Amino acid sequence: MTSRELFENIKKKQSFLCVGLDSDLNKIPEFLLAKEDPIFEFNKRIVDATVPYAVAFKPNLAFYEVLGSQGWISLQRIVKYIKENYPDIFLIADAKRGDIGNTSKMYAKVFFKHFQFDAVTLSPYMGQDTVTPFIGNEGKWVILLALTSNDSAAELQMLPVGDGSQRLFEKVIDASMHWGSENNLMYVVGATKANMLADVRKLVPHHFLLIPGVGEQGGSLQEVVQYGMNSQCGLLVNSSRAIIYADRTQKFAEVAGQKAKELQMQMAGFLKTSNLL
Amino acid sequence: MTSRELFENIKKKQSFLCVGLDSDLNKIPEFLLAKEDPIFEFNKRIVDATVPYAVAFKPNLAFYEVLGSQGWISLQRIVKYIKENYPDIFLIADAKRGDIGNTSKMYAKVFFKHFQFDAVTLSPYMGQDTVTPFIGNEGKWVILLALTSNDSAAELQMLPVGDGSQRLFEKVIDASMHWGSENNLMYVVGATKANMLADVRKLVPHHFLLIPGVGEQGGSLQEVVQYGMNSQCGLLVNSSRAIIYADRTQKFAEVAGQKAKELQMQMAGFLKTSNLL
Repeated sequence: MTSRELFENIKKKQSFLCVGLDSDLNKIPEFLLAKEDPIFEFNKRIVDATVPYAVAFKPNLAFYEVLGSQGWISLQRIVKYIKENYPDIFLIADAKRGDIGNTSKMYAKVFFKHFQFDAVTLSPYMGQDTVTPFIGNEGKWVILLALTSNDSAAELQMLPVGDGSQRLFEKVIDASMHWGSENNLMYVVGATKANMLADVRKLVPHHFLLIPGVGEQGGSLQEVVQYGMNSQCGLLVNSSRAIIYADRTQKFAEVAGQKAKELQMQMAGFLKTSNLL
Repeated sequence: MTSRELFENIKKKQSFLCVGLDSDLNKIPEFLLAKEDPIFEFNKRIVDATVPYAVAFKPNLAFYEVLGSQGWISLQRIVKYIKENYPDIFLIADAKRGDIGNTSKMYAKVFFKHFQFDAVTLSPYMGQDTVTPFIGNEGKWVILLALTSNDSAAELQMLPVGDGSQRLFEKVIDASMHWGSENNLMYVVGATKANMLADVRKLVPHHFLLIPGVGEQGGSLQEVVQYGMNSQCGLLVNSSRAIIYADRTQKFAEVAGQKAKELQMQMAGFLKTSNLL
């Protein structure tokens, strides 16, 4: 998918919502546990209910790996289901991998060929070697961690580096922006640090950003839009737990759909105010 | 396993060798492809042939994930095989994960409970949140990336940070050394930067270090020992391709055993010279 196609989908759905599929056997509605593949069943219903309001889905791989080979199978099934039924969806493997060249090549094969994800999240710590094998797969994306939404993110990411004029997360963006392009590289910038989005936009005005941390982690959608939106929207805002675990009864999917719709309606408002619709 | 037990195993085997199980269907001997589970078969024979000369094995997870759920099953089988037959072996999941707290908890469950690995490699970019859920599982270890052996490692890891008195890899070690202890935390320091080991040892004189990059990547074992060995050895030196792909005929395991033995004999010499045996 190109950034232009992604923007077209955003305009069509009046939404830049990404739904995080952090599917945990201990948190999904109990009645699903009787199903043959409870994780697939849960995801399928969440996807069907939220897809009118979302342009992207993001399974976090840890939640599948914890189930061993069965988790891997559930993940394959849900990826296939989404690709077959909702081909416009931008599908992100939240893997946060990062390894040397020959290993990165293997991972690129895993996520782009084996699974047909559109994008994979990577950690920048090992430098360009980590990213290069993923770039150049047509229509596929790398989403590089820059400034994350967790409590301890600042310990390293906010350190001044080099001559002190940049912080580590800015250096990551500055160094990496030419490893790829606006059509195959985006950055993770946490909503909990929304005012830093202004600094990020000085470096990469045109790149898409994946924004976690709205909702349960306390980030504000309004601030994210204020500091991060560009003329092609340029934002994918992720929400996981606040949508998928909003209800744990038979109605869980319906409630998840409502929660997604609430976010979508706010997003539509922001897109209109910014004259993007 | 405690660091003391690890040192005891090193003395017993006169070796601080870790064999990297980067098992690639495209590189293993062709005749194995007819087997029901070629990757398990390859690993089993490599392990049986090299285990007299090694204290640790390190499967790189990318090579298993690329095979989908079957790869996951092969990995489970080889981990079980090693644990049952060679309980003294220190078993490292080379996963290079790094995520926020609730996801890290899932990963800790994957690697320590589901798979019974002794250790997992993690990326420090997201700070302490990444590491804490892994610490406190008795006898289990985190191996944090500090200075890696790949070409582009220096791009970020060698940057001066803060007031300029430390480079990023030193800051990572300095900030993280109290997240765990010498009994549950070690660091990755590439052999290709062996002289940097002296700087690492100033910060963590007593911690174990996992050293990749000897052999194919050009690192020197002699330099690693010179700059990195401490009074409890404090080193695990990894070799992958130079051992496991040294031969691709029916004799591959035997040749791998010979290659491992060559390294072990050099290591025994260094341990003796350092009065550790």
